[in-house]
Amino acid sequence: MSMSHRTRKLLNDLRRGKTSVKRALGALRDLPFKDLGFAKVDVHRALRRGFPEVIFGKGKTPDQIIKISRKILSHDGILLVTRTEESVYKKLKRLYPKIKFDKSSGIIHYAKNPPPLKSGRVLVITAGTADMPVAEEARVTLELMGNKVEMLYDVGVAGLHRILHKRHALERASVIIVIAGMEGALASVVSGLVSKPVIAVPTSVGYGASFGGIAPLLTMMNSCSPGVAVVNIDNGFGAAYFASMINR
Amino acid sequence: MSMSHRTRKLLNDLRRGKTSVKRALGALRDLPFKDLGFAKVDVHRALRRGFPEVIFGKGKTPDQIIKISRKILSHDGILLVTRTEESVYKKLKRLYPKIKFDKSSGIIHYAKNPPPLKSGRVLVITAGTADMPVAEEARVTLELMGNKVEMLYDVGVAGLHRILHKRHALERASVIIVIAGMEGALASVVSGLVSKPVIAVPTSVGYGASFGGIAPLLTMMNSCSPGVAVVNIDNGFGAAYFASMINR
Amino acid sequence: MSMSHRTRKLLNDLRRGKTSVKRALGALRDLPFKDLGFAKVDVHRALRRGFPEVIFGKGKTPDQIIKISRKILSHDGILLVTRTEESVYKKLKRLYPKIKFDKSSGIIHYAKNPPPLKSGRVLVITAGTADMPVAEEARVTLELMGNKVEMLYDVGVAGLHRILHKRHALERASVIIVIAGMEGALASVVSGLVSKPVIAVPTSVGYGASFGGIAPLLTMMNSCSPGVAVVNIDNGFGAAYFASMINR
Amino acid sequence: MSMSHRTRKLLNDLRRGKTSVKRALGALRDLPFKDLGFAKVDVHRALRRGFPEVIFGKGKTPDQIIKISRKILSHDGILLVTRTEESVYKKLKRLYPKIKFDKSSGIIHYAKNPPPLKSGRVLVITAGTADMPVAEEARVTLELMGNKVEMLYDVGVAGLHRILHKRHALERASVIIVIAGMEGALASVVSGLVSKPVIAVPTSVGYGASFGGIAPLLTMMNSCSPGVAVVNIDNGFGAAYFASMINR
Amino acid sequence: MSMSHRTRKLLNDLRRGKTSVKRALGALRDLPFKDLGFAKVDVHRALRRGFPEVIFGKGKTPDQIIKISRKILSHDGILLVTRTEESVYKKLKRLYPKIKFDKSSGIIHYAKNPPPLKSGRVLVITAGTADMPVAEEARVTLELMGNKVEMLYDVGVAGLHRILHKRHALERASVIIVIAGMEGALASVVSGLVSKPVIAVPTSVGYGASFGGIAPLLTMMNSCSPGVAVVNIDNGFGAAYFASMINR
Amino acid sequence: MSMSHRTRKLLNDLRRGKTSVKRALGALRDLPFKDLGFAKVDVHRALRRGFPEVIFGKGKTPDQIIKISRKILSHDGILLVTRTEESVYKKLKRLYPKIKFDKSSGIIHYAKNPPPLKSGRVLVITAGTADMPVAEEARVTLELMGNKVEMLYDVGVAGLHRILHKRHALERASVIIVIAGMEGALASVVSGLVSKPVIAVPTSVGYGASFGGIAPLLTMMNSCSPGVAVVNIDNGFGAAYFASMINR
Amino acid sequence: MSMSHRTRKLLNDLRRGKTSVKRALGALRDLPFKDLGFAKVDVHRALRRGFPEVIFGKGKTPDQIIKISRKILSHDGILLVTRTEESVYKKLKRLYPKIKFDKSSGIIHYAKNPPPLKSGRVLVITAGTADMPVAEEARVTLELMGNKVEMLYDVGVAGLHRILHKRHALERASVIIVIAGMEGALASVVSGLVSKPVIAVPTSVGYGASFGGIAPLLTMMNSCSPGVAVVNIDNGFGAAYFASMINR
Amino acid sequence: MSMSHRTRKLLNDLRRGKTSVKRALGALRDLPFKDLGFAKVDVHRALRRGFPEVIFGKGKTPDQIIKISRKILSHDGILLVTRTEESVYKKLKRLYPKIKFDKSSGIIHYAKNPPPLKSGRVLVITAGTADMPVAEEARVTLELMGNKVEMLYDVGVAGLHRILHKRHALERASVIIVIAGMEGALASVVSGLVSKPVIAVPTSVGYGASFGGIAPLLTMMNSCSPGVAVVNIDNGFGAAYFASMINR
Repeated sequence: MSMSHRTRKLLNDLRRGKTSVKRALGALRDLPFKDLGFAKVDVHRALRRGFPEVIFGKGKTPDQIIKISRKILSHDGILLVTRTEESVYKKLKRLYPKIKFDKSSGIIHYAKNPPPLKSGRVLVITAGTADMPVAEEARVTLELMGNKVEMLYDVGVAGLHRILHKRHALERASVIIVIAGMEGALASVVSGLVSKPVIAVPTSVGYGASFGGIAPLLTMMNSCSPGVAVVNIDNGFGAAYFASMINR
Repeated sequence: MSMSHRTRKLLNDLRRGKTSVKRALGALRDLPFKDLGFAKVDVHRALRRGFPEVIFGKGKTPDQIIKISRKILSHDGILLVTRTEESVYKKLKRLYPKIKFDKSSGIIHYAKNPPPLKSGRVLVITAGTADMPVAEEARVTLELMGNKVEMLYDVGVAGLHRILHKRHALERASVIIVIAGMEGALASVVSGLVSKPVIAVPTSVGYGASFGGIAPLLTMMNSCSPGVAVVNIDNGFGAAYFASMINR
Repeated sequence: MSMSHRTRKLLNDLRRGKTSVKRALGALRDLPFKDLGFAKVDVHRALRRGFPEVIFGKGKTPDQIIKISRKILSHDGILLVTRTEESVYKKLKRLYPKIKFDKSSGIIHYAKNPPPLKSGRVLVITAGTADMPVAEEARVTLELMGNKVEMLYDVGVAGLHRILHKRHALERASVIIVIAGMEGALASVVSGLVSKPVIAVPTSVGYGASFGGIAPLLTMMNSCSPGVAVVNIDNGFGAAYFASMINR
Repeated sequence: MSMSHRTRKLLNDLRRGKTSVKRALGALRDLPFKDLGFAKVDVHRALRRGFPEVIFGKGKTPDQIIKISRKILSHDGILLVTRTEESVYKKLKRLYPKIKFDKSSGIIHYAKNPPPLKSGRVLVITAGTADMPVAEEARVTLELMGNKVEMLYDVGVAGLHRILHKRHALERASVIIVIAGMEGALASVVSGLVSKPVIAVPTSVGYGASFGGIAPLLTMMNSCSPGVAVVNIDNGFGAAYFASMINR
Repeated sequence: MSMSHRTRKLLNDLRRGKTSVKRALGALRDLPFKDLGFAKVDVHRALRRGFPEVIFGKGKTPDQIIKISRKILSHDGILLVTRTEESVYKKLKRLYPKIKFDKSSGIIHYAKNPPPLKSGRVLVITAGTADMPVAEEARVTLELMGNKVEMLYDVGVAGLHRILHKRHALERASVIIVIAGMEGALASVVSGLVSKPVIAVPTSVGYGASFGGIAPLLTMMNSCSPGVAVVNIDNGFGAAYFASMINR
Repeated sequence: MSMSHRTRKLLNDLRRGKTSVKRALGALRDLPFKDLGFAKVDVHRALRRGFPEVIFGKGKTPDQIIKISRKILSHDGILLVTRTEESVYKKLKRLYPKIKFDKSSGIIHYAKNPPPLKSGRVLVITAGTADMPVAEEARVTLELMGNKVEMLYDVGVAGLHRILHKRHALERASVIIVIAGMEGALASVVSGLVSKPVIAVPTSVGYGASFGGIAPLLTMMNSCSPGVAVVNIDNGFGAAYFASMINR
Repeated sequence: MSMSHRTRKLLNDLRRGKTSVKRALGALRDLPFKDLGFAKVDVHRALRRGFPEVIFGKGKTPDQIIKISRKILSHDGILLVTRTEESVYKKLKRLYPKIKFDKSSGIIHYAKNPPPLKSGRVLVITAGTADMPVAEEARVTLELMGNKVEMLYDVGVAGLHRILHKRHALERASVIIVIAGMEGALASVVSGLVSKPVIAVPTSVGYGASFGGIAPLLTMMNSCSPGVAVVNIDNGFGAAYFASMINR
Repeated sequence: MSMSHRTRKLLNDLRRGKTSVKRALGALRDLPFKDLGFAKVDVHRALRRGFPEVIFGKGKTPDQIIKISRKILSHDGILLVTRTEESVYKKLKRLYPKIKFDKSSGIIHYAKNPPPLKSGRVLVITAGTADMPVAEEARVTLELMGNKVEMLYDVGVAGLHRILHKRHALERASVIIVIAGMEGALASVVSGLVSKPVIAVPTSVGYGASFGGIAPLLTMMNSCSPGVAVVNIDNGFGAAYFASMINR
C-alpha cells in the first residue's frame, strides 16, 4: 500500500512549503474513486486489491451495469460482470465488441491484455453436471486473474472411483475448488485425499431437503477434514477470487 | 396376522350357537394389551411385529419404567429400555439379576433365551469415536433381535483409505448402518462403494453449524447415491430395528 | 464385486510374465467409466450396483441429458431419467422410439428387455391424490427394477377406515412405501399396523406450515413406530431404489 | 359485559346531578384492577372472562408469585399457578394450607368451593407416558373450571388398536384434547375417527429431529383432517382453558 | 356412530341364520366409500362427521377434481372445493349450473338445499384488507355448514379504536375467527377483550421477516391470552370447520 | 390527544342538559373513521399520529387501492401507496393528474401542499446499487413528511474508504438510515463512526445464504455498536417514518 | 468531531516548522485508546459518542472485567457493566465502594456525578412481570445517561384495559421502550395508540414456540403500525442507549 | 504422494519373483494406520497431510483420548487435542510431563521439537475480548505448525479507528484470521482494507438473535468483499490449519 508513502510525500511537501495546508487537507480527502450518482466505482482497486472492481449484476438495471462497466473499462483493461442477463451483454457488445458472455453462468468478461500467468494451478471439481454454471463462473474468474485452471466435472461421491481415478489431477494442483450441491460430501472427501487447501462452494442444485443449498453448506462447514473453507452458496466467483489470492 | 382367522372362528362359533352375540361383541373388543393406568403395554406385539415393545426411557420416571418392564417380562422373555439412567438399571437389577446395562448409550437389555440367529450380517460403521454410544444402542438392539453384527469404528471420510481398506467387511454384510455426526458424508460414500441397503443415522456429535445433528441429517437426506434411507438423529435403536427387519 | 478377482488375475499375469509392469499399472487405472467432458457416465454401475446409472434431469440441459442417455443406452438396455421435461422426451423419442414418458412425474423410462421379476411385492401408498406424481416416479422405478408393484392411493389418516380396510394389501407386501405430504402421519400408522419395513417419502404437497415438505419430513423422522426409514422430500425414485434393494 | 350498563348509569347520574363531571371522568378511569408495583392483578377477570387470572410461574420470583397469589385469593376463591417449583408451593402452603401441588407439571391449584359441573365431558388423550406432565396441567385446569374430565394415556399411533379400542371414550366426549410429542400424528387420527373438536397440544417429548416440539407442532398444524386447532408446545393449560370455553 | 349398532345387527342375523359367515365377513369389510382409482371418496362422511368430504384443489388436476366432485354430488347435496382455479369452476359449471365460485379465494361451493341455521353466530375478523381471500374461504365454509356469519374487515391493532369500536359485534358472537398476517397481534387483543373462543388464522400477508406467515403463526401460538387456538397459515376453511363444530 | 377534552365537553353538555344520555352514549361511539366495507379508513390519523394513513399495496386489488385512496384524499392532502404496480398508478392518475410514481420501489405519492420543512436532516445510506429501490421508498416517505434528505449510495464496507470519505455527511445528519443487503455490516460501521441514531434496514439483495434478507437482519440485530435499531427487511417506508418521528 | 480541527492544527504546525514530518505522522496514528493486551479500551468514546464504553460482561473473565473497569474509571466517571455476576461486583466493590449492582439483570453501574437531566421523559413498558430484568437493564442505563424514566410493568395485551388505562403515561413520554416476550404484541398496540417513537425489545420470556425470543422478535419486526424499531432479544441496554440518543 | 511409487516397486518385485502374488495382495491392503478397536489412528498422516492427526476431544472419554494420544506420540512428536478438559490434561501430564494446556480453549498441545518456521506471518484478529478462547485455539495450532503468529485483540467495528490504527499489522501478514461473534462484520471490513486472504471464524459469542453463532456465520458467508472464506462456528483450529496450508 502506497498510502503512507503518499501521505509522507504530502507532509514533506507541506513542510517544504510546496503546498498549502488547505490543499493538503483536500488531497487527503481526494481518494481515488469516482461517483456516478448511484454507484461508487472503485477505480483504484486494481492497485489496492490486485484486481479491478467486479460488478455483481443481480438487482442492477441494464443501464446501471453499462454505466459502471464503461467507467471501469475507461480505467482498467479488465471487466467482470456476474449474474447478469444476455440482454445486458448484447448492449455492452455494441460498445465493446470483444467482450464475452457465458450463458450458463450469466457472466460477462473481458481482458484487454491476457494477465501474466501464475505458476500454480487451480483445480475446479464439480460433483455433478448441474453444478457446471457455478464452475464456469469460477473458471472465467480464475483465468481473468491469471491462473492455470484444470476442470474436473461430475466426480461426486456416489461413484467414488471417479475421483480416486483422478488423483494425479489432485496432486498437481496448488489449490482446489470443490463445487457440490445435494449433500456436498465431495469437499471432505477431496480434502482427505490430498494436502491442498480446498475451497468449498455449496450449490443450490438439488431439491427437497437440500433447501436451496443449506444442506451442502452445512456439510462443508462441518467437514471432519481440516483444510476446507467455505464460501456462499453458488458463489463460484468468490471461490475463484480467494483461490487466486492463495495460488502462488 | 391371524386376526381374520380369529374373526372367522368367532363368527363360526356364533353361527353354530357356541357363543352369544354379546360375547362375540366383547371378544372383538378384547384386544391383547394391558392397561397400567399410565401406559398401555402392548404384550402381544411380539407376535404382531416380531419383537416385544421397547421402552423409550426418556421422560419416564423410574417407577414407570420398572412397572412397564415387569409387565413385559411377565409376558415376553426380552426387555429393551433405551435412553435411561444407571439408577433405573440398579433398581431393575434387584428384580432381574441377569439384565445388562450399557453406560455409554444408557440402554438396559435382557433376553431370557438367545434369539435364533439370522444368516445375514449387519455391519455397523461409525465415522468417529464419539459416535460410539449410538453404535452401541444399535449393536445391542441388533443382537437382541438375532442378527450377526460386525462393528467398524472411526472410518470417517477425512481419511478415506480407512473405509476403502475395509471393503471386504462392506462386501460380506447384508445391511449396513452408517452412524455419523459432523458432516455425515460417510453414508453416501459407503453407499457408492457397494450395492447394499444403507441405513443412515445422523448423530449430534459436532459443534457450531452441526446444529445438534441437523447438518448430517440433511447430508444423508440429500445423498446423491441411491440406496440410503435415514432415521432420526442419534436413533441407533431405530436403525437397528429397521436393519433387522430387512436382514434375511 | 469382481475387483479383487480382477486384481488377482492381473498380478498373476504379471508374475507369469504375461504382462508388463507398465501395463499392469495402467490396467489398475483403467476403471470402467467414460468421460463425456461434462459427465462421467458410470457404465459399469449395472454390474457394481445392480442397476445402470440414473439421470437426475433437473439442472441439466436437454443436450446434456441426450448425450448421457445415448451413452448409457449404448451400454445398458435400461434408461431412467427423472425430473425432466416433455421436450427432452420428444427429442429422445426420435432416437429411441420406444421410450416412455410420464408427464405427472416428468420421468423418461425404457427397458429393452423386461427385467426378471422378483417374488416379493412392493406396496406404494399415497395419503392424497396430489401425491400421485411422486408415486408414479416410484412405480416406474420399481417396475424397471423388476418388482411386482401394488398401488394404494388416497388413504390418508383423516379417514382411517380407508387404510384399515386395505390391511390385506399391507399383509401381502414385502416392503411398503408410504408417500404423504401435509402432516405425513400415514407412515407411522402403517408401520404400526404390520411388521413390514416402511420407506417414508415426505412430499411438498400442502401449504403454509408444511414448509415445502419439512412438516411431513419431521413427522416421519420422529415416527414413534420403529420400522420407518425416510428419504428426501418428493424422492419417489430413491424410495423405490431402496425398496427394490430390500425386496427379496 | 356490564360496561355500557355502568356507563349509562353514570351518565344518568350525571344528567340528574347526582354526580359531578370530575367524578364521572374519574369513575370512567377507575377500572377494576389493582397495582402491586410489578404486576397488574386483574381481579375482575373472573367476571369478564369467566375465570380468575392465572399466574404463569416461569420467570417470576417466589416473592412475586406469593404476592400475586394473595391478591387473587383475597378477591377470588380460585388460584392457579403454572410452571412453578415445589419451594413456592411450600411457602404458599403455610398461608393457605389447603392448596395442592402437582409435582410432575409444577402446578399449584386451589378452589375454595368446587365449581358447578358442566354437563359435557372433556377427554384428554396422551400419545405416550412421557406426555403425562402436560396432561396433568390440562386435567387440573379443566377440573378447576368445572369440567368432567376423562383421561386416556399412552395410546399413540404406533399401536393403533389402542385408540381404536377406546372409541366409546371418544364418542362420549364433547371436546377432545390430544397431547403428543415425537411425530404428533395422534391428533389427526383422533380427529378422523369422530366428529368432535380436537385441541392438539404438541409436546417437547422426543429427541433429535423433534426439535423440542417443532415436529409435532408442524404435524398438528398441517393436519389433513379438519376439526383440529393447535396451542403452544407443552401448553396443557391453554388447551384446557380453550376446551372449557367450548364445553357445554 | 351407528357402527356398533350395525355390527350388532349383523351378528344377530348371523346368529339367527339369516346370513352366512362368508357374507358377514364381507359385510364387515364393505365400508361406505367408493374407489375412483386415484381417490377414495368418503361418501358417508356426511353421516360420520356431519359434513361431506371437502376437496383440497391444490395439486389435483382439473379432471381429478371434476370426477371427485361428481361422485360427491351424486351422493350429497353439498360441494366444497378449496384452492382451485376458475377454469375448473367453468368446467364444473357446465355440469352443475348452480355452483358458485369466489375468485379471491379460489373456492367452488354449492348446496342443493340451504342447511338448517344454527342459533349461534360466528364472527370473522380480519386485520387487513389483504387478508380478505382467507376470510372469504372461511365465510363460504361457515355458511355452507349452517352458521350465521358476521364479517369485520380491516380492524388491525395499528388503530386499536377500530376494534374497540366494534365490541358489540364481539359480544354477540358465539365463536370468533381472527385472520391476520404481518405480526398477527389481533388474536391476542380480541381474546383479551371478550370471553369467547378465538380461532386464529395466520396469513401469508406481509413481506420480509413475516416469512410467509411464520411470524403471525408464532405470535398466535404464543398468545399471552388464554382462549386462542391456531390453525395452519391461510387455512380459512379449517378455521371455519372448527368454528362450526363448536358453534351451538 | 383531544379525547379527554372532547369527553369532558360532552359530560359538561350532558350535565347542563344540552344533550341527552342517548346522544352522549352515541357520541362516545362515533369515532372518527369511515367504513368502506372492506377497509376501515382512519381519516383522523393525520391528527392522532401526525401523518395520514399509508396504503400498503401488496395483496390489495387495484379497485380496493383506488377506493381507499379517494377516501384519504377527500380528507387529507397527502397520499402514500407503497408496494403497488404501475397499472394502479395509471388508473389513479386519471383521477388525480398530479400524483407521482417511482417505478423502482412501486410507490405512489402525492402532497397537495408541501409539508413544512424540519430543521434536521436525514441521511439515507445504501451499501450497494441494488439497494436503491428500498432507498427510494425511504426518500419519498421522508420528503412527504417534511424532512430534508441526503442520499449516499453504494458505500458498502468492501471499500471502507468510500464511507470514511463521507464523514462530513454523517456529521451533519440528525438521523441516519442505513440500507444494506448481503451481510449488512454497514449499519455497525456507520454507528461506530458517529454518535447519531442509526435505523437499519436489511434488504433482500443477495443470494444463497443471505436467505432473502435474514443474514443482514441478524447482522443488524446483533450490532456490537449501540445506537442501532432495526426495521423489517426491505422496509424503507418504516425506517423513514421512524426517522421522521425522531428528526427534530 | 474535533478530528479535522486537530488535523488542521497539526498540518499548520508542520507548515510552520513547529513539528517534524515524523512526529506529524506519529501524531496521526496516536489515536486515543489504550491497549490492555486483550482489550482496547476506548477512553475517548465519551467525547466521540457521548457516553463512555460499556462492558458487555458475558464471556469475559472477572479479571478482564475488573481491569477494563479500572481503566475506564481512571478516565471517565461512569461505569456500566452488563450481563455479569454478583462475584464480579463484589470484587469491584472493594475497589470502588460506591458502585451498585442490580441482581435481576446482572448490571453493575456507577456515576461519579449525576449526569445533567434531559427534559424529555422515557417510558419503559413491560408486558409481564418476567420481563422485569430486561426492564431494569434499560432503566439503569437510561438514568446513567441522564434521562427521566417512568416504568409501567405488566400491561400485556391479554388485558387491554391495563394499557388503555395508562394513556396519560404514554402521552407524556418523549420516547417509549416496549419490552415483551411470548407473542410481543404490545409494541404494535402501544405504537397504534400514540404518535411516539417505540423501541421494541423482544424477550426470551416464554416457552415452546417462542423459541427463546424469535416469536416476539418477528412480531415486532412485522409490526403493522409504523413507528416501531427493534433491538436484539433481551437487549434492554441497547434499547435504552438508542432511546437516550433520541430523547430531547 | 509416494503411493504410485510404492505400488510400482511392489509390481516390479512381483515381476522379478521377489514376492508372491499373495504377499503383493496383502501389501496393497496393508495401509499405514493402526486399529485401537474404537479409533483408527492415522499415523502416517504426518507424511500424507503435513501434520499428524488431531484429536477432537468432545464426546470422547478420557481413556479414549489418552490411548489415542499415546499412539500418536509413539509415532509422531506432535500432539494436539482440542475441546477437552483439564482432567484429561492432568492424566496425560503424568505420562508426558512436558505437554501444555490452555484452559480458556481446552487445548492440549506438545511438540517434541519446534517445527521449522515459515517465512510468512499469520495475523489473528478478534472482534472482542470474549472471542479469545477461539483465538487461543488458533494461535496454539498455528505455532505447532511452524507459523509466525501475530495477535490483535478486541478491534471490533464498533470503534473502527481501532482496526484502522493497526493497518501496518494487516499489511505485513500473509494470511489473516478474523474471529468475531455478534454480528461478525469485522471480516468484511478487514478484507476490504487489504489484499490478503481472510479466513473468517464466526463465534458463539453474543446472545438473543446471534443464535449461537448463526448471525456472524451468515454475515461472513455473505461478505460483499471477495477474499473471505469461512470455517465452522468457534473453529479456531480449522482456521489455523487452513491458514497454515496457505502460509508460504
